[in-house]
Amino acid sequence: MGKRVIPRDGREAATAEAHGWFVTDAFSFRLIATDGTARRGEISMPRGTVRTPAFMPVGTGGTVKAMYLDQVRALGSDIILGNTYHLMLRPGAERIARLGGLHDFARWPHPILTDSGGFQVMSLAKLRKLDENGVTFRSHIDGSAHVMTPERSIEIQGLLDSDIQMQLDECVALPSSEVEIERAMELSLRWAERCKAAFGEQPGKAMFGIVQGGDNATLRVRSARALRGLGLKGYAVGGLAVGEPQAVMLEMLEATCPELPADRPRYLMGVGTPDDILKSLARGIDMFDCVMPTRAGRHGLAYTRRGKVNLRNARHADDPRPLDEESDCPASRDYSRAYLHHLVRSQEALGAMLLTWNNLAYYQGLMADIRAAIEAGSFAERAALISEGWARGDLPAL
Amino acid sequence: MGKRVIPRDGREAATAEAHGWFVTDAFSFRLIATDGTARRGEISMPRGTVRTPAFMPVGTGGTVKAMYLDQVRALGSDIILGNTYHLMLRPGAERIARLGGLHDFARWPHPILTDSGGFQVMSLAKLRKLDENGVTFRSHIDGSAHVMTPERSIEIQGLLDSDIQMQLDECVALPSSEVEIERAMELSLRWAERCKAAFGEQPGKAMFGIVQGGDNATLRVRSARALRGLGLKGYAVGGLAVGEPQAVMLEMLEATCPELPADRPRYLMGVGTPDDILKSLARGIDMFDCVMPTRAGRHGLAYTRRGKVNLRNARHADDPRPLDEESDCPASRDYSRAYLHHLVRSQEALGAMLLTWNNLAYYQGLMADIRAAIEAGSFAERAALISEGWARGDLPAL
Repeated sequence: MGKRVIPRDGREAATAEAHGWFVTDAFSFRLIATDGTARRGEISMPRGTVRTPAFMPVGTGGTVKAMYLDQVRALGSDIILGNTYHLMLRPGAERIARLGGLHDFARWPHPILTDSGGFQVMSLAKLRKLDENGVTFRSHIDGSAHVMTPERSIEIQGLLDSDIQMQLDECVALPSSEVEIERAMELSLRWAERCKAAFGEQPGKAMFGIVQGGDNATLRVRSARALRGLGLKGYAVGGLAVGEPQAVMLEMLEATCPELPADRPRYLMGVGTPDDILKSLARGIDMFDCVMPTRAGRHGLAYTRRGKVNLRNARHADDPRPLDEESDCPASRDYSRAYLHHLVRSQEALGAMLLTWNNLAYYQGLMADIRAAIEAGSFAERAALISEGWARGDLPAL
Repeated sequence: MGKRVIPRDGREAATAEAHGWFVTDAFSFRLIATDGTARRGEISMPRGTVRTPAFMPVGTGGTVKAMYLDQVRALGSDIILGNTYHLMLRPGAERIARLGGLHDFARWPHPILTDSGGFQVMSLAKLRKLDENGVTFRSHIDGSAHVMTPERSIEIQGLLDSDIQMQLDECVALPSSEVEIERAMELSLRWAERCKAAFGEQPGKAMFGIVQGGDNATLRVRSARALRGLGLKGYAVGGLAVGEPQAVMLEMLEATCPELPADRPRYLMGVGTPDDILKSLARGIDMFDCVMPTRAGRHGLAYTRRGKVNLRNARHADDPRPLDEESDCPASRDYSRAYLHHLVRSQEALGAMLLTWNNLAYYQGLMADIRAAIEAGSFAERAALISEGWARGDLPAL
């Protein structure tokens, strides 16, 4: 898997050079450093390199809500996530393919990971019916009928031209019975094989399998071992952060991660709070995605090094201080809490724009901080300091 | 009124130098060129210079909706408008004063014009009662009781630290009876005197009077002459674009403008479409404000040199072409109509962000174009070309 420099354009080449990166024609993962079970790595693919541990902002419908993608990039995002369910319904996968793929459509020339669509079919669509073959459902937008099979999911993700594609799986809500969890896990394994066959050989891209097994460590281990046997380019852990306590999630990761090959990236789907991320990557996870920073930003909530701040709260109404005077992000550093409070209370678009910007800046700054700490072998100390900052809480009111 | 250079900061000084501007400690207007009755001028005040004819984006509640003010500035906006009614109710004028004024609050260090609040009291507030003294009303937000007098309007605009303040006036909807129009016009004149007294001497700022008189040229002339007698620093024309045909509006401008002093700026309030602006400045107007570019942007409408384009229309769903491939604005030049259509249909915030950006870019580009044409003595030819572009209409569908 020889690396060579293929600059996509002047700017990309300059970036690659600045970071000491090489652009590759194949999908590959390189472990750069470990610190305990925390890992620092790099995923390389033709559209760019993803520094891990990585946080992937969620670009549901071809847009990271209330952000210009240039801003998302400038915050240090190497990859974003697209939702297959949303995009297949609107504007449609075939349409996006005709328009040159999701990268051109949304103006994001860097790597994109897409989910399989399965999770959102089960949470958003109407009249769902699941069997061995796949899921039939009706769109929550216009009621149109659709069939999602493992093969169709991979086909759609191909039409979107996604760089990292996910197998179709079945994710059960927790708590659930062991029988139900096992049934869904076994079905997901059979679908993993079908997705692998449908994906075939695509050197510059990857299809990840998804470990299921609910809150049952034995089932998780069985799922991970079976997937490992398929020799995939990466492995996700699904079906967590679906209602169980954080301790259960971490226990599942402790059971699962040692069963996954060390030379492949590991992605914990849909997680989570900064604290979830810190504790999960300490257990060997490399990639995360979550709507929290973007969704919270639209609801007046700011993530900061002093924890979560609710800008709707009247305590901010006369506060001239910024969210974080030490941040590099203009949204965090340059606007007063009083102004942010006013924007949130008035339901002004700029409130969502600034708080989403702040939140993604905080998440990406956190990831950069952690990557540096792992490289320096000081992850535990750094993680302790970060957690202490959250625990101390926000600035006292003026 | 001696001009001298008072750089407010490094960036401002560099800008002033680049434009050959001088920053002044007094409010002044300079006529640079005329072309027929169209005027090219400059309003100078301590916070900056406004190139006229000028379009002022509307920043209702301390934010130009769905835009960062840095973007608004970069489009060539020299001044924005703030709405006294909205700001006095939320977050409150006294609060903004404590926080350092509207410029600091919203992070716009350049000139700001505020309306008197009267127009929106009459259109938005509840239980309005108007008499000689002023208007009592209840907030449309929380039902709280307020009294707006000429003196209170000027006081509030002072608390906001507005650079150009407007007299309180009464604006009648058209059609209206002559008796009613005359009564409101005479009341507005008496309020102009009270506002002038309340404003007093403020060398770096201005208080503009407002010509009223509905669609009655005789009353308009009487109003303009009486206001001129007050020796104000600038004059607005109010009560137009309130339901009357464009021809009536232009007729009123033709009657009014010659009555206003040539050495003072003239502001047509709340106008309008690009065509309204083109025809009004041809009649001697220097300043405009309107919610159209920002509001239209939130409703899927784009202003372009080929006229108005409705991005909701299905004809754009598969169109890879940008709104305007020749524009300097990324929103206009870099995003496909298909993507914009998708964002609008999906009610994504980015749709409003990009279309508002496009629209303000179009409006400010139009103003720059017109200013250059007036200076070059080619306004009529340029205006004809611009109008022809609109009349030809949008690109044919693919």
